Amino acid sequence: MRILYDPSPRATEDIFSASAKEKFFSTYDVIAWNGEDRDDFYRRHLPETEVLISQQPMERDRLDLAPKLRAIVNVETNFLPNVDYEACFQRGVHVIAPSSVFAAPVAEMAVGMALSLARGIHASHGDFLNGEELYGLDGNHTAELLAGSDVGFVGFGDLGRATHKLLAGFNPTVRAFDPWLPEGVLSRLGVIPASLDDVLSKSRFVFVVATITTENAHLLNAEKLGLMQQGAKLLLLSRAAVADFAALAEAAASGRILVATDVFPEEPVAKDDPIRKIPNILFSAHRAGALTSALENIGNYVLEDLGQIARGLPPVACKRAERETVMRIRSKPIDKS
Amino acid sequence: MRILYDPSPRATEDIFSASAKEKFFSTYDVIAWNGEDRDDFYRRHLPETEVLISQQPMERDRLDLAPKLRAIVNVETNFLPNVDYEACFQRGVHVIAPSSVFAAPVAEMAVGMALSLARGIHASHGDFLNGEELYGLDGNHTAELLAGSDVGFVGFGDLGRATHKLLAGFNPTVRAFDPWLPEGVLSRLGVIPASLDDVLSKSRFVFVVATITTENAHLLNAEKLGLMQQGAKLLLLSRAAVADFAALAEAAASGRILVATDVFPEEPVAKDDPIRKIPNILFSAHRAGALTSALENIGNYVLEDLGQIARGLPPVACKRAERETVMRIRSKPIDKS
Amino acid sequence: MRILYDPSPRATEDIFSASAKEKFFSTYDVIAWNGEDRDDFYRRHLPETEVLISQQPMERDRLDLAPKLRAIVNVETNFLPNVDYEACFQRGVHVIAPSSVFAAPVAEMAVGMALSLARGIHASHGDFLNGEELYGLDGNHTAELLAGSDVGFVGFGDLGRATHKLLAGFNPTVRAFDPWLPEGVLSRLGVIPASLDDVLSKSRFVFVVATITTENAHLLNAEKLGLMQQGAKLLLLSRAAVADFAALAEAAASGRILVATDVFPEEPVAKDDPIRKIPNILFSAHRAGALTSALENIGNYVLEDLGQIARGLPPVACKRAERETVMRIRSKPIDKS
Amino acid sequence: MRILYDPSPRATEDIFSASAKEKFFSTYDVIAWNGEDRDDFYRRHLPETEVLISQQPMERDRLDLAPKLRAIVNVETNFLPNVDYEACFQRGVHVIAPSSVFAAPVAEMAVGMALSLARGIHASHGDFLNGEELYGLDGNHTAELLAGSDVGFVGFGDLGRATHKLLAGFNPTVRAFDPWLPEGVLSRLGVIPASLDDVLSKSRFVFVVATITTENAHLLNAEKLGLMQQGAKLLLLSRAAVADFAALAEAAASGRILVATDVFPEEPVAKDDPIRKIPNILFSAHRAGALTSALENIGNYVLEDLGQIARGLPPVACKRAERETVMRIRSKPIDKS
Repeated sequence: MRILYDPSPRATEDIFSASAKEKFFSTYDVIAWNGEDRDDFYRRHLPETEVLISQQPMERDRLDLAPKLRAIVNVETNFLPNVDYEACFQRGVHVIAPSSVFAAPVAEMAVGMALSLARGIHASHGDFLNGEELYGLDGNHTAELLAGSDVGFVGFGDLGRATHKLLAGFNPTVRAFDPWLPEGVLSRLGVIPASLDDVLSKSRFVFVVATITTENAHLLNAEKLGLMQQGAKLLLLSRAAVADFAALAEAAASGRILVATDVFPEEPVAKDDPIRKIPNILFSAHRAGALTSALENIGNYVLEDLGQIARGLPPVACKRAERETVMRIRSKPIDKS
Repeated sequence: MRILYDPSPRATEDIFSASAKEKFFSTYDVIAWNGEDRDDFYRRHLPETEVLISQQPMERDRLDLAPKLRAIVNVETNFLPNVDYEACFQRGVHVIAPSSVFAAPVAEMAVGMALSLARGIHASHGDFLNGEELYGLDGNHTAELLAGSDVGFVGFGDLGRATHKLLAGFNPTVRAFDPWLPEGVLSRLGVIPASLDDVLSKSRFVFVVATITTENAHLLNAEKLGLMQQGAKLLLLSRAAVADFAALAEAAASGRILVATDVFPEEPVAKDDPIRKIPNILFSAHRAGALTSALENIGNYVLEDLGQIARGLPPVACKRAERETVMRIRSKPIDKS
Repeated sequence: MRILYDPSPRATEDIFSASAKEKFFSTYDVIAWNGEDRDDFYRRHLPETEVLISQQPMERDRLDLAPKLRAIVNVETNFLPNVDYEACFQRGVHVIAPSSVFAAPVAEMAVGMALSLARGIHASHGDFLNGEELYGLDGNHTAELLAGSDVGFVGFGDLGRATHKLLAGFNPTVRAFDPWLPEGVLSRLGVIPASLDDVLSKSRFVFVVATITTENAHLLNAEKLGLMQQGAKLLLLSRAAVADFAALAEAAASGRILVATDVFPEEPVAKDDPIRKIPNILFSAHRAGALTSALENIGNYVLEDLGQIARGLPPVACKRAERETVMRIRSKPIDKS
Repeated sequence: MRILYDPSPRATEDIFSASAKEKFFSTYDVIAWNGEDRDDFYRRHLPETEVLISQQPMERDRLDLAPKLRAIVNVETNFLPNVDYEACFQRGVHVIAPSSVFAAPVAEMAVGMALSLARGIHASHGDFLNGEELYGLDGNHTAELLAGSDVGFVGFGDLGRATHKLLAGFNPTVRAFDPWLPEGVLSRLGVIPASLDDVLSKSRFVFVVATITTENAHLLNAEKLGLMQQGAKLLLLSRAAVADFAALAEAAASGRILVATDVFPEEPVAKDDPIRKIPNILFSAHRAGALTSALENIGNYVLEDLGQIARGLPPVACKRAERETVMRIRSKPIDKS
């Protein structure tokens, strides 16, 4: 099977383990882009390409060059608006991305941050370093348990489901708001379908794991954050744009809610950004997903679906771009992995 | 049922919720100690006492004063060597303590600290406050997942089991060392029975949750800690005396292992104790168990077992002192709850 | 949203609960076929149809009449070769079926039959009725536990996953063979990917839950059945054609394996079919899936996906026909539900 | 450690695997009774006996002969009223029985019978043998799912807990009635504490797994059975005396409830006992617990606790007789294992 391979901005060494890389290059007829003029390169190789691993533009003109194309694999894991998806769907070209590789590490970060907020792990560690620690009950007046608590999800895709799975031993009551899923699907996944307002007002822990779309920018504004309970915890793990950060900072500063965030409107955050001084925020520098093991799973998932395609089967490890939603997702290109 | 009630050093308001307190005093014939001369008080009331809630000495002379005594309830939750246990057992007097109330909060702290070490949550939060955060993969070179990892327990009583339960969604491989339990019991609890050396050398996360006994002081010395894997995490949650703290600090300082500890040889830790400067340690000021909700469960468990005793049934909510082991447990009296 | 509704051979009363039926007809603009000439009816209504609920032929000529068509919903839950799927995919017409409604009841039947074989529940009940029962250990010489046993799946789609889910409390070692899925996907679903031979030779319980395809007729022939362990149990739940029934009967008759089957090459089975006399077979008359509650879920799932389509979202409750596989599935039309 | 070994009515070959037997006899100083005069034998050997494995009478006179005695192990697993328990407790002699070995097999039988009743597995198998089977929905009019249903337990000791564990994947709502346990304990075990009436009236499946005591004979009488829902299922697994069998048979005969029973007031059941003709009963001839593997676990559990005792630790694998309850349990001696 002929593969055109141009993983930029990902690096081969990041997305393939040594053995997976060896398997990839020895199993398939891989033509790798090596820095030459891209347009020439694509023009020359697309006619024989069956699978394209690339984030480069694939508008109609390029697609027309590739009559044998069966799949486009996005290893950046963000579907960008530089592909003529409609043409792909008409021709039966799958456009796929191994985006769920990040679900497991993000979910663990989410649970870790939730417990850190609930018990003040990071904050009392800081106090200890400063010789200001409070012992026992004195240091625990606002501590609470995750086990048996009310937990809410804003968005219930891969990230939400992976986080929910980790909570199995904690036996929480779980509500989920996801406008892209029917209530029945949520129920069968074992959570209570709920409105955004219910999720916010009834939960002690709110995990924000929604994909950013054309519709949900600043979904969590001052009004919505105002629905949260005193001392409830908000964990922001998907994209910063889902929240109005000024409102978020204010809700944390006032002590009404506790916040943990892995994402920020601008990254890196400016050294003098006032948010750094806001209390009641647990800061994480976009570190939830980017684990070595997760990145290597990109290669593993791609190999799995290349095997499917080679055997005439549909891809099942990667997510497929969907006609209805692909142009409604507002991904942000990564700078690097 | 006549109860002599002298919960010191616990306070009634700490161990009973309002409704439980009301139930306790309205259901039973409670004689509460109120600061008078204790010896007089006990001498006057023991003859009619059926249940004694107290941590005061109960040697043979006092027991002889209490022919109707059916149970001694230790609400400090530490069995101390100030009771003639043998005489109690002969007379059929249960000596019990609601010690498992602390299992749930300690377990959550254990998992929270494990995730914080695995992902550097507390450390990178500190970096962020200092404007020194590293983004994405740059900040994740030593990060690892708890899910699917090798986890070990030193001790597998209430704390170990509660922690194990929380890990259900993480699907780890779990080894447990507990010299007080047969291998078959550990297997039936769903863990792999293992030697201490195996637990230490095969685990990425080692939860130390052993009761301190006459036999296991400094069980985790330099040699044993030397068995741990590079970058493995040690979580110390039960009693400081289980570990040689100098060796522990050295192993952390060298960067060979990461440590989280909720307990220290002396508490509070001296302001100038050099351990405060050791890197790779996550510090917690004996905050794992002392949650308001856990303390209130002391009252709940006591009420449950008072109900059992009143109905002629054996206590089942509290732990019972055991003939074979009660004098081998080296509890440390608490100063306050 | 205009819906052309022609559920035959399903009956509306079977697939909709009263409330779901009311919701269906009141929410959508439903044109129901009522026995008139079908060709006329379709010709007249397809031009305005947005969703077609029907199992009638939809070749290119009919599709050309339906420019607004967005989905074809097969409520028989078998994709038949009477649709021009390729044309549907090109036009972005989803072809979907709520086939997973049967997974839960089939899975329970599978576990129930497995336990019945393992413990002789049905057989010893028969003995009891005949006054020939054996008590205690005398009746248990070949009895064995499902808990902790080796379990295998032939096929690991909806039925396999639903059965696997029910086994959670039994803690088995699970191997699965599914030639349509990559090993990584099986691993992430929590089972050991295995060859057919390994599944057959290493399992005490083999659940056959594979869809019948152009490739797997008589997959379980005498040779393959010969790999099974003495006394192992085979549970046939999907389609009879997966097995060579003569070989199956022989393996049961010889006492080498125990068999439970819900499906037969011809149904109803002839009164004088010799298979009725074969010992070591637990017979079920195609009763695994057809529960009232499962049939009513057809309506529920359809309503869920109609809601998705109406809101411009992709269907998620039903299964979609896939370009690569839809023509490789050999479904058998049902006579009635 | 000196052991006096007299397992009758159990046979050594039943309760020990080959390797466990070898371990038992090679590790301990075992004096086995071999058919000689028992009184002589006990008189001669009790003075040096540290552990007694026997179901023979141990009244005060015999206990007085055994000053070194530390434990009496009942391998029949029924505490009988032929031991001076009070004297044992005073002396610190544990009286223990490995009774929980039967929990796993009984629990599987319970779930298997529940599914067989819910889906008519045994009954429709019988119809099939008679050529009277009904296909598909025709045969399923009263079939229902266990998953998601309301399940009740009468008694929530080892049997109930083991059954509950197996139901994990079925996600039922579980109520339990157990007059020997506080509500808090039941809640912490993950079930809803309930009255007997609530368990009976709110459940589709009622598992009767209560030990028979001096208080609960004929607990399930006509009045109580009358609380059950139309078509609900009663599964009787512990002791027949818990139910009024005449009332039980009548409730089944009328078709109001379905019954499965593993136990009968008299066993073996007379050939002409009219109960054999009652419809809607699934009969099992006391086969739920007596599996080879369960019986061999008797030896395993005994070895585990002998190890504990030899190391000066309390027994933990076997159940201990309790001062408050041992004389309230109405066990029936077994004839054979």
